[in-house]
Amino acid sequence: MPVITINAPPINKEQKRELVSAFAKKASEVLNLPVSAMVIIINEVESENVGVGDSLLCDRQQDE
Amino acid sequence: MPVITINAPPINKEQKRELVSAFAKKASEVLNLPVSAMVIIINEVESENVGVGDSLLCDRQQDE
Amino acid sequence: MPVITINAPPINKEQKRELVSAFAKKASEVLNLPVSAMVIIINEVESENVGVGDSLLCDRQQDE
Amino acid sequence: MPVITINAPPINKEQKRELVSAFAKKASEVLNLPVSAMVIIINEVESENVGVGDSLLCDRQQDE
Amino acid sequence: MPVITINAPPINKEQKRELVSAFAKKASEVLNLPVSAMVIIINEVESENVGVGDSLLCDRQQDE
Amino acid sequence: MPVITINAPPINKEQKRELVSAFAKKASEVLNLPVSAMVIIINEVESENVGVGDSLLCDRQQDE
Repeated sequence: MPVITINAPPINKEQKRELVSAFAKKASEVLNLPVSAMVIIINEVESENVGVGDSLLCDRQQDE
Repeated sequence: MPVITINAPPINKEQKRELVSAFAKKASEVLNLPVSAMVIIINEVESENVGVGDSLLCDRQQDE
Repeated sequence: MPVITINAPPINKEQKRELVSAFAKKASEVLNLPVSAMVIIINEVESENVGVGDSLLCDRQQDE
Repeated sequence: MPVITINAPPINKEQKRELVSAFAKKASEVLNLPVSAMVIIINEVESENVGVGDSLLCDRQQDE
Repeated sequence: MPVITINAPPINKEQKRELVSAFAKKASEVLNLPVSAMVIIINEVESENVGVGDSLLCDRQQDE
Repeated sequence: MPVITINAPPINKEQKRELVSAFAKKASEVLNLPVSAMVIIINEVESENVGVGDSLLCDRQQDE
């Protein structure tokens, strides 16, 4: 039943595969539960929907 | 105030109506709170954004 | 994989059983997915940790 | 590390800027933590994905 | 319906009142929705349940 | 900013350290973002607050 949610920038399918595979195996090992019990939800968040400190991530990136 | 979040595959509006109506009424009955207090958020998640076990749901479906 | 999260006031085990059983069956029926795929997480929230409008739920209850 | 999630109707970038700026500053002041530690995620939710009481928000709006 | 979730260190009731009051009023103003529609959930998280970078917040605090 | 939430059974501090360290490093590598940007929140959930299929996890465990 462990449920892991990942809020991340938009990524490609290969990156999703890598994250899910690595996280499920590690969680299974640390929690001592079967890999098959793991559920992972990836939530891709655009940079204008993320605040870091008091400004939007998209505004910070333009400054740099 | 009860807030219910549903992470599900993409569904149509009639399915959303059914889920919201049934969940709000049942929660109201079990929690002994007015139906009008219920807030439900539906989060539609594509199969490439879901991990079950150590693989993406979209990859498992292709195998079957 | 559907994952349902319920934020509710503290409740007893029988109420939790009722919610989980009803929600899992209804979601299975509406989404056309096996009941066994459903994962539900109950998050019990004290009334001092809930804001409704601009005040804490615990303060509103004292007024009534 | 404080992480704030805002589920709101679709809004424009200027509204996002205002929310993030105001929330980060207020949370910093109340929690006595640096503004730079704040992370805010905005989740824009269409009205057909929100239930208020036992009906979808999009259906309630049509009635009014 | 806007639902705001705040993950923060343990805080006292007065701090919760301040956060809820300020956030609900600001969100109402920016989103142009009634204050009464706002729902806020505070989730108090112990420092051993927070990771910042690759270490637990409780371990980082001991080092300082 | 990536924010990862882990809903898991109650675990000890060493297990939390291992999860946070492994997840932050892997996410940093896959997302190509600095490890220091990662925020992880662990939510320990009692087995009576988890539904798997249509029954509580605590009831399933008693049967086995």
